[in-house]
Amino acid sequence: MSPGKICSLTARDVRFPTSLEQHGSDAMHTDPDYSAAYVTLETDSGLKGFGLTFTVGRGTEIVVCAVEALRPLVVGRNLQEITTNFSSFYRHLTSDGQMRWVGPEKGVIHLATAAVLNAVWDLWARSEGKPVWKLLVDMEPEQLVSCIDFRYITDALTKEEALDILRKGQEGKQQRVDQMMREGYPAYTTSCAWLGYPDDTLKQLCSSALSEGWRAFKVKVGADLDDDIRRCRLIRQMIGPENVLMIDANQRWDVGEAVSWVTRLSEFRPLWIEEPTSPDDILGHAHISKALAPLGIGVATGEQCHNRVMFKQFLQASALQFVQIDSCRVGSINENLAIILMAHKFNVPVCPHAGGVGLCELVQHLILFDYICVSGSLENRMCEYVDHLHEHFKNPTVIKNAHYMPPMEPGFSSEMVESSVTKHSFPQGDVWRNFQHL
Amino acid sequence: MSPGKICSLTARDVRFPTSLEQHGSDAMHTDPDYSAAYVTLETDSGLKGFGLTFTVGRGTEIVVCAVEALRPLVVGRNLQEITTNFSSFYRHLTSDGQMRWVGPEKGVIHLATAAVLNAVWDLWARSEGKPVWKLLVDMEPEQLVSCIDFRYITDALTKEEALDILRKGQEGKQQRVDQMMREGYPAYTTSCAWLGYPDDTLKQLCSSALSEGWRAFKVKVGADLDDDIRRCRLIRQMIGPENVLMIDANQRWDVGEAVSWVTRLSEFRPLWIEEPTSPDDILGHAHISKALAPLGIGVATGEQCHNRVMFKQFLQASALQFVQIDSCRVGSINENLAIILMAHKFNVPVCPHAGGVGLCELVQHLILFDYICVSGSLENRMCEYVDHLHEHFKNPTVIKNAHYMPPMEPGFSSEMVESSVTKHSFPQGDVWRNFQHL
Repeated sequence: MSPGKICSLTARDVRFPTSLEQHGSDAMHTDPDYSAAYVTLETDSGLKGFGLTFTVGRGTEIVVCAVEALRPLVVGRNLQEITTNFSSFYRHLTSDGQMRWVGPEKGVIHLATAAVLNAVWDLWARSEGKPVWKLLVDMEPEQLVSCIDFRYITDALTKEEALDILRKGQEGKQQRVDQMMREGYPAYTTSCAWLGYPDDTLKQLCSSALSEGWRAFKVKVGADLDDDIRRCRLIRQMIGPENVLMIDANQRWDVGEAVSWVTRLSEFRPLWIEEPTSPDDILGHAHISKALAPLGIGVATGEQCHNRVMFKQFLQASALQFVQIDSCRVGSINENLAIILMAHKFNVPVCPHAGGVGLCELVQHLILFDYICVSGSLENRMCEYVDHLHEHFKNPTVIKNAHYMPPMEPGFSSEMVESSVTKHSFPQGDVWRNFQHL
Repeated sequence: MSPGKICSLTARDVRFPTSLEQHGSDAMHTDPDYSAAYVTLETDSGLKGFGLTFTVGRGTEIVVCAVEALRPLVVGRNLQEITTNFSSFYRHLTSDGQMRWVGPEKGVIHLATAAVLNAVWDLWARSEGKPVWKLLVDMEPEQLVSCIDFRYITDALTKEEALDILRKGQEGKQQRVDQMMREGYPAYTTSCAWLGYPDDTLKQLCSSALSEGWRAFKVKVGADLDDDIRRCRLIRQMIGPENVLMIDANQRWDVGEAVSWVTRLSEFRPLWIEEPTSPDDILGHAHISKALAPLGIGVATGEQCHNRVMFKQFLQASALQFVQIDSCRVGSINENLAIILMAHKFNVPVCPHAGGVGLCELVQHLILFDYICVSGSLENRMCEYVDHLHEHFKNPTVIKNAHYMPPMEPGFSSEMVESSVTKHSFPQGDVWRNFQHL
């Protein structure tokens, strides 16, 4: 049966009161209520697709408003027409002659684009009866490339270079699929050391994570140097010298401050410092990368890098050593394909950002594709994992021995449990109405 | 009387059907309906302040939604407390622990911040009984600097350097005020050559502009090379060899394409190529700048440069030769002060973007301040002017002999005529209801 024409789009504001327990707290986001602008598409044949973008509470209603503004560009379009020339649909959404002014391809409007396109990918994969990663793995290089809008990146990656990379990636593909089915994709945990957690909680979480097989741990830093030293020392003692430690400042510093602060933390041998400064500061990150290289500390960033043009420059300027793609900040798989291919060309490993609401569920598809069809390597590579809010998803991530196990259900793993959505809808859901009564 | 506490904030969606006559059309915005998210603040003493950000039609409702999301951060605050420590109020608006996720400091949320802060500046200037430019000119260097959030720019400009620049700018200030009152600030016109205008219209508009004293003219290019050659030749013939021609591609090209296309237009001796590629592509603009320097063509950009961190890098990378500040894209005067001071430090002239709805009205205050207190020079400097929609403002710009004459009414010249706002409110205003009946 043909999937048909998209006949409806709904957008909902779903918020979880995570700030109550300081889950997700960092140096810049001290009280996040993990949230999502959640999109449902339906075709006239009755097929549904689900997509979302992650937010942290207030402001989600703006993204929902932006999704609604995109509705006329989506409803009435035939799914097959969209996917046959996906880059032109991408351009259609991102280059509307009026709406592009409030972006272009950044901030609220691009988060909304991500949510909508994520739903389109879910719809496509469901119509093919495959998980998104498998849909991607089964696509010919020509078809993959037809999903990418190369505008503004041809000075770093041409269509021909992209094709060339993807053709080379076909070799040994089946072995890598088998390996992933068997072992899964390596993950690291951020669940042990949110900034708002007291030391005892850190210790306890770290200890149980070790016993579950985790070997790489991320610590939030940046608010107070003495605290950071104490917390990093604690974690390094807990995990021992062999395991991997990463630190994350969530944009807290200016350029010079980043260099001096991280230098002070270098004795704990972090693999990377994540988001040392403004996510827009390519030249700043390049400066920090250069200064920290002699200490053996890399720079990681990407969760707030707003589009492929920014990632292009981070790569051109050697401003990062770990590319942290996000499944919901840029223009879905279409734009992430471009970023993954550029990272490969510049020989920088992709280590996705995840956590939040649904980010683990979605990004696992992308990193499986990266390994199977592009990088073919696990060296210096791992995908972030945070262990909360998965219960709200119909097909939550499966972690075994600190590895993401490939999802097998058709789609993008992006469908939420309807009762969770209803209960957490803002402001009318039960969870939020109860707060108002307090 | 004390101006008091801000007790209300309203945001309205105001749109003008400019697309009907192709005013404002360019290579990427082919059918703009010039619009504004228009903000009114009121204090408990009854004082009102007006601010806006410019948009081009669809999407304005998203910015209005974002302004409303900022309301709780503004209402209840005392104006005097805000202005006494203005940088901390700026930080308060831009660094909300939840809302910054949908930016930070970019796109919809930053456009909304601009509209709100523009209204606060209007309120402040009215409470002092001065036009904004005079308020700025009369401020001590220390007070000016206290309006700036230096986060993320200290590697390019420290507070001390900013103070130093401003102290030097005090010398000869009164002469420059007198000169501006007498002669006004030099302007150029973009009204003659929008992309959608036929050649006859171009000729006629150019001819009357020449007779009105205009000496610098901007032409939209980028959609079709043969058309561009024909249109540039026409304009150059009309204005003669002595007058100034600029060209503007509105982000149409990739990096390599920009270089080759502009090289083909170099025979018409444009002073600058404006927005040759993505507004995010600092390294791309640096490449284009380097390639075009031997042809004597500079690169100009800024109207979609989303914050001070991006401008900082454009300057650090020698990626532009003309800084086109915008009064409504970045965080109002607070952020533009930082940009103007950085431009001065890097010795690059500021030539503001204007036009749209109210951009000329607002930005004239900034460029007067730049000349009187920072640059002290008119060399290679001029401010854009477009001659429509001024009738909707209570104190429209006054142009004499192609110069902006300093506004004398208290405030930021940002108050619109109430009947215009009502009539053009979207979608319920008369103008838009009539369209729906067609």
